Amino acid sequence: MKIVVDAMGGDYAPKSVLEGVAEALENFKGFEIVLVGKTKSLAPLMRRHSLDKNPRVELVHAEETVKMDDSSTVSLRNKKNSSITVGADIVGKGEADAIVTIGHTGAAVAATKVKMRTLPGVERPAIAVIMPAKEGKVILLDAGANVDCKPINLAQFAIMGELYSKSILGISRPKVGLLSVGDEDVKGNELTKEAFKLIKDTPVNFVGNVEGTDIFERKADIVVCDGFVGNAILKSCEGLSKLAMHMIKKAFTKNPFRMTTALLAQKPLLELKQMGDSEEYGGAPLLGVNGICIIGHGSSSPKGVKNAIKVAYELVKKDLNGAIVRKLEESNITF
Amino acid sequence: MKIVVDAMGGDYAPKSVLEGVAEALENFKGFEIVLVGKTKSLAPLMRRHSLDKNPRVELVHAEETVKMDDSSTVSLRNKKNSSITVGADIVGKGEADAIVTIGHTGAAVAATKVKMRTLPGVERPAIAVIMPAKEGKVILLDAGANVDCKPINLAQFAIMGELYSKSILGISRPKVGLLSVGDEDVKGNELTKEAFKLIKDTPVNFVGNVEGTDIFERKADIVVCDGFVGNAILKSCEGLSKLAMHMIKKAFTKNPFRMTTALLAQKPLLELKQMGDSEEYGGAPLLGVNGICIIGHGSSSPKGVKNAIKVAYELVKKDLNGAIVRKLEESNITF
Repeated sequence: MKIVVDAMGGDYAPKSVLEGVAEALENFKGFEIVLVGKTKSLAPLMRRHSLDKNPRVELVHAEETVKMDDSSTVSLRNKKNSSITVGADIVGKGEADAIVTIGHTGAAVAATKVKMRTLPGVERPAIAVIMPAKEGKVILLDAGANVDCKPINLAQFAIMGELYSKSILGISRPKVGLLSVGDEDVKGNELTKEAFKLIKDTPVNFVGNVEGTDIFERKADIVVCDGFVGNAILKSCEGLSKLAMHMIKKAFTKNPFRMTTALLAQKPLLELKQMGDSEEYGGAPLLGVNGICIIGHGSSSPKGVKNAIKVAYELVKKDLNGAIVRKLEESNITF
Repeated sequence: MKIVVDAMGGDYAPKSVLEGVAEALENFKGFEIVLVGKTKSLAPLMRRHSLDKNPRVELVHAEETVKMDDSSTVSLRNKKNSSITVGADIVGKGEADAIVTIGHTGAAVAATKVKMRTLPGVERPAIAVIMPAKEGKVILLDAGANVDCKPINLAQFAIMGELYSKSILGISRPKVGLLSVGDEDVKGNELTKEAFKLIKDTPVNFVGNVEGTDIFERKADIVVCDGFVGNAILKSCEGLSKLAMHMIKKAFTKNPFRMTTALLAQKPLLELKQMGDSEEYGGAPLLGVNGICIIGHGSSSPKGVKNAIKVAYELVKKDLNGAIVRKLEESNITF
């Protein structure tokens, strides 16, 4: 198994990426790494971590780097030799099984969609984020890959999300909910009302409509929505966690002796603030592209990179994509 | 000025509603109250608060009551004599200026839209909620009145939200943002891209696209979105606050001596949990209907009811609706 790692993405690249790669190689077996990036920048770091002599590591040169403030399509239009485009092309040609990229979600979506294409029957891939919830985790998708969706897209997200939940969280029969504005079957907008009918006919364990409040109550293990809504939920919850931490700090600093307590109180909020960017899972997969793609948060530490590689390895080994293609066909929900 | 109060709505009705009415009459002058509800249930409570002898209070009988688990349209279809329908009809006939109703948002939207109709030029009204943010408040609209919107609806929300912000928060030139998935002008879905162009041409102080995280950073004083997205944001933020409180409590109860501290840490979160239901403002206005309509949270205390009446009074006195009609006409954003 070969896993491509975009060495140039993220706030601390390439340093933290290479550290993460070294840790992954040390801790896990069963795969090789194709590092993609600027050879000149990578060489000294590779030597430092003895990656240059590691037979499990191959280096592929990519002249350009997509910066965090570049537009999503720049990797395809103006930076055709960027590490993400070159990396996605390697997977697209069948020379590797997965790609791990840190940082620029939009560029990763654009490059993998074009270079790797979607799985047979899938029209649009979806970003699946793992969010904290009461006594467990919830998977929300799409968290932002598609801002305009058709009902069939949401039905495909339901199936892809269910299989991802089984693979990554080990839930045997996860509950799938459709995000709406009320939990009665008839509630929703035009998109979700149609999607409701389609999802009801799929073999997933569909619990019907769920509301925003239900996400964190874990009424469903998987919550399906379009990428505009998913992004709005994810970002506003991140913003709220940040504000709550700020408010707690302010409330406690009125009494300096309570600062330690304020820090304690912030701990659970910190976990919430990093929603969808959990270092434990290394990032969010882009489900539905032809090859496993894990997108890590821009601020990923070496541990985050290591775990992103681990997750990519596991999803390839468990043949998540094969399962998706089969289940979509069986369900007759193909595009 | 006459303000209709639906005496039967909310978890603690009619008791807390009548207490709130009594407090409002005692504290504020310049208006009369038309209480609508079941005469039999209200009579003893009216005597207790000396409302039966108060010349500023009129009682109108309504045989039926919309329950919290009734569907939104039940007030119009099956319960034509419900307090909300009878109350909205009084305003619709021009016999009162405003209505305050507690509890059932869907029924309030349905009844007021039909009985009071929308303002000239307005196609769809919007629920405007006041959310906590860094160093101030942010108004989010639509929070759930319309799940499917056209670009012109969002442009009207921008204007209505701006005027409401001026009236209620006293901000002289509030910044208006359009909720999207990125802050660049070109980011968004089909709806927001078109709405962006329309809002840009209105006289509001438009700061462009804002993301979910920006809401709580107060990049804009007013954030405009469709009711599906607004409801998803509001509800998921409520759910997150609840989860955060739960997690903080759990973290602190490992050490029983820290319980007091846990309670302290929860205080700011409590404010966040009640987002959009701030007792200070008594509830959320439904902007764009012909007559002021304030919808209070189901769990409103007498203080919440009192403040909802106060807000209704102020919005009538400041002629918010007149300002909306004039500004929509001037901006050529009428339906």
